[in-house]
Amino acid sequence: MTTSSPLEPVPSFDYVIFGATGDLTMRKLLPALYRRFAEGQVPADARIIGTARSPLDDAAYRERALKALREFIRGDELVDATVERFLHLVHYVSLNGADANGDWASLAAKLASNDPDRVRVFYLATAPDLYGAIAANIDQKGLRTAHSRIVLEKPIGTDLETARKVNEGVGQHFPENSIYRIDHYLGKEAVQNIIALRFANPMLERMWDHESIEYVQITAAETVGLEGRGGYYDGSGALRDMIQNHLLQVLTVVAMERPSSLDADALRDEKVRVLTSLKPLDRHNLAANVARGQYVGGTSAGQSVPAYRDELPDAAPSKTETFVALKAEIDTPRWQGVPFYLRSGKRMPEKLTEVVIQFRAGEPGLFGEARPGSRLVIRVQPNESVILPLFVKQPGNAFGLDEVDALSKLGEPGRVRFRDSYEGLMLDAVKGSPALFVRKDETEAAWQWVTPILQGWSDAASGPDAYEAGTWGPESARALLAQAGHQWVEDLAA
Amino acid sequence: MTTSSPLEPVPSFDYVIFGATGDLTMRKLLPALYRRFAEGQVPADARIIGTARSPLDDAAYRERALKALREFIRGDELVDATVERFLHLVHYVSLNGADANGDWASLAAKLASNDPDRVRVFYLATAPDLYGAIAANIDQKGLRTAHSRIVLEKPIGTDLETARKVNEGVGQHFPENSIYRIDHYLGKEAVQNIIALRFANPMLERMWDHESIEYVQITAAETVGLEGRGGYYDGSGALRDMIQNHLLQVLTVVAMERPSSLDADALRDEKVRVLTSLKPLDRHNLAANVARGQYVGGTSAGQSVPAYRDELPDAAPSKTETFVALKAEIDTPRWQGVPFYLRSGKRMPEKLTEVVIQFRAGEPGLFGEARPGSRLVIRVQPNESVILPLFVKQPGNAFGLDEVDALSKLGEPGRVRFRDSYEGLMLDAVKGSPALFVRKDETEAAWQWVTPILQGWSDAASGPDAYEAGTWGPESARALLAQAGHQWVEDLAA
Repeated sequence: MTTSSPLEPVPSFDYVIFGATGDLTMRKLLPALYRRFAEGQVPADARIIGTARSPLDDAAYRERALKALREFIRGDELVDATVERFLHLVHYVSLNGADANGDWASLAAKLASNDPDRVRVFYLATAPDLYGAIAANIDQKGLRTAHSRIVLEKPIGTDLETARKVNEGVGQHFPENSIYRIDHYLGKEAVQNIIALRFANPMLERMWDHESIEYVQITAAETVGLEGRGGYYDGSGALRDMIQNHLLQVLTVVAMERPSSLDADALRDEKVRVLTSLKPLDRHNLAANVARGQYVGGTSAGQSVPAYRDELPDAAPSKTETFVALKAEIDTPRWQGVPFYLRSGKRMPEKLTEVVIQFRAGEPGLFGEARPGSRLVIRVQPNESVILPLFVKQPGNAFGLDEVDALSKLGEPGRVRFRDSYEGLMLDAVKGSPALFVRKDETEAAWQWVTPILQGWSDAASGPDAYEAGTWGPESARALLAQAGHQWVEDLAA
Repeated sequence: MTTSSPLEPVPSFDYVIFGATGDLTMRKLLPALYRRFAEGQVPADARIIGTARSPLDDAAYRERALKALREFIRGDELVDATVERFLHLVHYVSLNGADANGDWASLAAKLASNDPDRVRVFYLATAPDLYGAIAANIDQKGLRTAHSRIVLEKPIGTDLETARKVNEGVGQHFPENSIYRIDHYLGKEAVQNIIALRFANPMLERMWDHESIEYVQITAAETVGLEGRGGYYDGSGALRDMIQNHLLQVLTVVAMERPSSLDADALRDEKVRVLTSLKPLDRHNLAANVARGQYVGGTSAGQSVPAYRDELPDAAPSKTETFVALKAEIDTPRWQGVPFYLRSGKRMPEKLTEVVIQFRAGEPGLFGEARPGSRLVIRVQPNESVILPLFVKQPGNAFGLDEVDALSKLGEPGRVRFRDSYEGLMLDAVKGSPALFVRKDETEAAWQWVTPILQGWSDAASGPDAYEAGTWGPESARALLAQAGHQWVEDLAA
């Protein structure tokens, strides 16, 4: 029986969003809170307080919020009366969070409450270099209560050193157990399902090692190019923007040992162990293990599109990678010899985020021609779903086989609306459930592994390999797998 | 993709049925041949020659055949023109196969052919004590060609000694590789699927031992009582009628080691090994391992029904069991400590044939309350299907679980018509594919194990335990499992 879970009640809360006029707030945060409100999970006395530098009042900000809901939520989910009630929860304070001389008094006034147990969430959706200053101001203005948490959007730093600086800056004002580093990939149904599938099914748990698994592929492909984010992106690149956080997080969930419980720290202890067991990649072995690319002009969705460098504000030459593929190895008994192929890029042929677990081929012979091993596919986009093929007999043919998808129903449209990943995570912060947030040592372990790759690239004379927009990246990405006789899944399907 | 298998062509054949006016021929054999004909798998020059003692001609027998098709095949499967073409293949010879002085010349004339490779199948659907004589006559009248097979219906004997006698009698006139002992349970899609599931899916193959499986239940339950078969049945009983053949055959498929190939002898070698590894049950340990019952009056499908003994022609007291439940153990490393509970009975609450593989419970704790182990159910009746539960995450609840049926689609109505078990098996005999037939040593190994149970009962002062018609058998059947803390599945569901 597949059921929607009962709504777990959440305590009364104030959600303070820094960066409240920004794209993330409009596109994700307000719609997520609206949906939880519409489903009845947000208490009627909750308050959502936006702050940003723009001089707006509550009414003007509610106008913007309404516009965002209309733009980013399907019409049939929007009920006028519900929207109106929701907007009553929304407030605004004009405040630069990094400025100690800002109007903190107004924010304090909005937060006034007689309930000492009221939960307060500070959601930082600003430029990350402001996190330390905002945390300091919240603390020094006396706004951090015993029931406060602070949510940090990515990126936490741009390398190990800067990440530590952010963590230390915020850590001086908030205890680690109240710091919620959000990685929305952990809010995805399909990613969370990896934990359920692995540890609730002995059948899969037994298959989860180097004896049964030949390799793992984790792909996050976008069709878009820069979308006007050129200034930010050119200083970042695919490795920082996607691999260091999202794809490594997915990798930890796929690869971790069975935790002693699903408590936040038991779970994250195991995830950290994966990150610290990654075999180092650095300038000595980059060539054999990492491919990077930058798109040149090509065709996307039938349209001619420009090269990356022509999308940059100054159209200047750049060594920033818009594509990276790498082979990670985990130095534990479970994963000896199993490559984890990670890949992310812009201007790919399709928008696709998925994990592929390639099982080894079974013993040959019994059912005729050799069959390749099965593939468990955990698809995050475009349709969250899990595909687990099993072989059954072909009706009418005693020893013929059919391949059926054991879990196809999970992805069927119309079954249960899968929540947007922010919906669950934003309320987890209210509930004080940090299991699906990234702990300080996780972030730093991920940077510790990624930073030598960045350094290796920076030291190298050459830059990224060119690939045509609308293709699956440079030839070097294929060569990376070909050395082991493997192929990217879309090449297998082709 | 689930597909119907392409039709494998079969060579031209003559099917000679002994017992051609009997119930089995009318109910199963002619409908099976018709269906294969209608689907195009029976060559246009095939001949179906019925023989029995009744003095009929071709036309009169075709009338009977037509009546049988109309009675036992759904109207929408019967197309007049097809039925007419099929009936043209049907012939009749009035002949007592056990009588050397019968009209063998007419049968020989019907079988005349210029094709030396034409396949000839002799299907013995008569009383089993005639098998030796019929085989001798076929041979001595010169009707056994190089491409002849002989199909034997159950029962092959009534104990080890008589089974050997039947095998020897037929074996003097047909080589073992042309003797096809039919057990229609092996023709069931669901039973054959056990082989596919076990050996085509490493995921299941790894689970298939005492470490993962707690016990196995194999049930064949009927709602009917004697149906006028009292004379035959009272001399047989449930152990001979169902366990010795059908349920032990299913057990071999569940328990066998991986065969080196799916060739008939490789497969049957492994099946025999299971039977010869069964721990002996005899008068010393019957009480703890076997329960037998006989129904008294009760209610079936809302109707009041009489006791077994009142259904017997002479209403005499009888010690014949109409129900048997037993605990079999297989003395191999794979199955140490795993009970195989076998059970069959008449006047049960429902018509049900199924195999239940009870997996051990996984490690507790990770997902909250303790969960029982999963159960793989292979259902032969009423709807052939395979039910394999998997746990997935509950949408909207990061660490909540839903149980879904991974293979539910297999049993969906309207998918592919599952063939009646006789359809495949009857053509397997034509094709010369004995893999799904029972070899001599299998029959005898099964009798070797069953005969001491019969002897133990015969030596015992007491008879079967009474159970009310319309219930799941006597209390002793429940007690048999309770000693190990187990329960029959319908008790679990209740």
